[in-house]
Amino acid sequence: MTEETHSPADAPSAGASQVQHGIENEYYTQEVHGPYDYFDMDAFELENGRTLRNCRIAYATFGELNDAKDNAVLFPHMYSGTSKDMEMYVGEDSAIDPNEYFVILPNQIGNGLSTSPHNTPAPNGQADFPSVRIADDVRAQHRLLTEEFGIDELQLVLGWSMGAQQTYEWAVRYPEMVKRAAPIGGTATNPVLSGLLVDALMSCIRSDSGWENGYYDDHRAVRDGLKRHARTWLLMGTSSTLFREEAWRKAGFTSLSDFVYGAWEEWFLPMDPNNLLTMAWKWKHADVSRITDGDLEAALDRIEARTYVMPFAEDYVFTLEDCREEEAMIPDSELRPIETPWGHFGMFGFDPADKEFIDETVRELLDEEV
Amino acid sequence: MTEETHSPADAPSAGASQVQHGIENEYYTQEVHGPYDYFDMDAFELENGRTLRNCRIAYATFGELNDAKDNAVLFPHMYSGTSKDMEMYVGEDSAIDPNEYFVILPNQIGNGLSTSPHNTPAPNGQADFPSVRIADDVRAQHRLLTEEFGIDELQLVLGWSMGAQQTYEWAVRYPEMVKRAAPIGGTATNPVLSGLLVDALMSCIRSDSGWENGYYDDHRAVRDGLKRHARTWLLMGTSSTLFREEAWRKAGFTSLSDFVYGAWEEWFLPMDPNNLLTMAWKWKHADVSRITDGDLEAALDRIEARTYVMPFAEDYVFTLEDCREEEAMIPDSELRPIETPWGHFGMFGFDPADKEFIDETVRELLDEEV
Repeated sequence: MTEETHSPADAPSAGASQVQHGIENEYYTQEVHGPYDYFDMDAFELENGRTLRNCRIAYATFGELNDAKDNAVLFPHMYSGTSKDMEMYVGEDSAIDPNEYFVILPNQIGNGLSTSPHNTPAPNGQADFPSVRIADDVRAQHRLLTEEFGIDELQLVLGWSMGAQQTYEWAVRYPEMVKRAAPIGGTATNPVLSGLLVDALMSCIRSDSGWENGYYDDHRAVRDGLKRHARTWLLMGTSSTLFREEAWRKAGFTSLSDFVYGAWEEWFLPMDPNNLLTMAWKWKHADVSRITDGDLEAALDRIEARTYVMPFAEDYVFTLEDCREEEAMIPDSELRPIETPWGHFGMFGFDPADKEFIDETVRELLDEEV
Repeated sequence: MTEETHSPADAPSAGASQVQHGIENEYYTQEVHGPYDYFDMDAFELENGRTLRNCRIAYATFGELNDAKDNAVLFPHMYSGTSKDMEMYVGEDSAIDPNEYFVILPNQIGNGLSTSPHNTPAPNGQADFPSVRIADDVRAQHRLLTEEFGIDELQLVLGWSMGAQQTYEWAVRYPEMVKRAAPIGGTATNPVLSGLLVDALMSCIRSDSGWENGYYDDHRAVRDGLKRHARTWLLMGTSSTLFREEAWRKAGFTSLSDFVYGAWEEWFLPMDPNNLLTMAWKWKHADVSRITDGDLEAALDRIEARTYVMPFAEDYVFTLEDCREEEAMIPDSELRPIETPWGHFGMFGFDPADKEFIDETVRELLDEEV
């Protein structure tokens, strides 16, 4: 991952780059994560000055945009996720009901469906992919909403973890567009300990002898690193309570080993390491106060949305206190903690009660007149 | 690390083994950690049936054993530590006053001063060192106390983290000997999440290309692994509050980098990876209920000591709740949480207020008539 540098990579690429199409990975396909559409942006200039040519955002939608174009809900996803992972919170019986709302699930730049290290031709592919910020994603999503759909008002922006980071960026960057916001298990500026976790995750991958500075031929060459990455995430993403009470049993795992190895390694092993690192860097550097010259209070004071700040009570990464401090700086906000032994991973819905609680809280927010 | 296997290593070694003295490491010396003495046990049979020949325990003492031999305090140390690290809690102005008590600071088998992988000749050296249990250490310490000093009563056993694990093992295994116990930031049976942390720490070391299955020529060959190990420990050993409040500044660190890289890498880099793995395995498998066929309640019910269970309030590894559940099973006990943003690392005394609180609580316990 190169950063803040300008290289010949920024120059318009010759036809040759059309020939090289990154490396094969059957995980990032319509079959696994579809259906989704693409929004093509051609040349998209990133905040750091680098330009991604032929840049496109994959996105899924549910429901229909009404004539007034005022029934949209935006729901970006978390680290290592795709639009598919958010679909469980969208449905006729859910608060986010496609009969009522036009629901847009954008995919992050670098997540494997949108323009990403693994699917970008030279000279911007793999380890040469530029550093991308949360702000870049939000600017790209803004283009998708305004240019593709003519939307200038969102009933709700919500998201978990990196999705919460995008939610905050939306509410601070485009305050007049966001009527309601629900950042779940995430913060407006990344906590330091969360950044140290990112460092540890990245080093799990980079220390793999198959990593080869990011120029591997096949993501499976880095499988040991991906496994360590999975295990390290598990440490901070859960809670001691989850294990003390063996609450993972309720999710159908047959044994501790089944849970620890099966669930988490299965999740991460199909993924492209450079894609993960692009998202990880973005996660680490999330900070809405970049809009206000480093003044977090001024940034959060810009938020016009009715905001429910929804931390997981036992989250080690984005802690209750981290979230509480920010909530106190948001004008029209409430703190709505989610009690679950699942910690940061509560959003996966392993316990249906967590999913239900989140859905009910979102429903309450949507029902508020603003 | 081999386990539960019997090999020719158990046979009496020939004179040849006297010639091979492990690998050089100037960290494990009297200059750095002394002064300390040795208690020689000759052949010491471990719980798993393996025998360590020429096995010895390094230990430091402060004060003098009185004629009644009833003024002894035992203070074993934590993971990656030595007797030297506990000395800060011993002194004329401390609860553990050598003018009043005979203070014994034993070194764990495998810690580098006692018999350990790095200082043991073939065929038991390095990766061939047997798996050692908390119970083995406690049995060795029992021999030290009874055979060397004729002690059959301890005013207090206390310890932090793995020191707490040894404290619990003492109180359960030799209940009639232990009058008071203060397990600090540790539990009687290792929490599952704590075991997953151990797995992650071990894999940091074992994934280093210089590890060579534990048969490296120099511990510095594994320095990348040791660095990752330090960084992973830091994630779980601290708390988000420590970073949010920048409480590390009070300890004199000049910057986040100074704290993260300097303090923790400096701590672990001089150490021998096999020594760390011996302690790590021991930590992971700590469980007093091995004495009572897996019945934890029965094991803790054996404790006769007046016991202060002293968790760190924000400890991610040995959490307040983990400690509270065990405390409820100990007949004559109290829960005395330590409020500090330092989490599990509160015992290092980076904040003098933490050290003072711990000292005062220990003083209160020592002042109790039992």
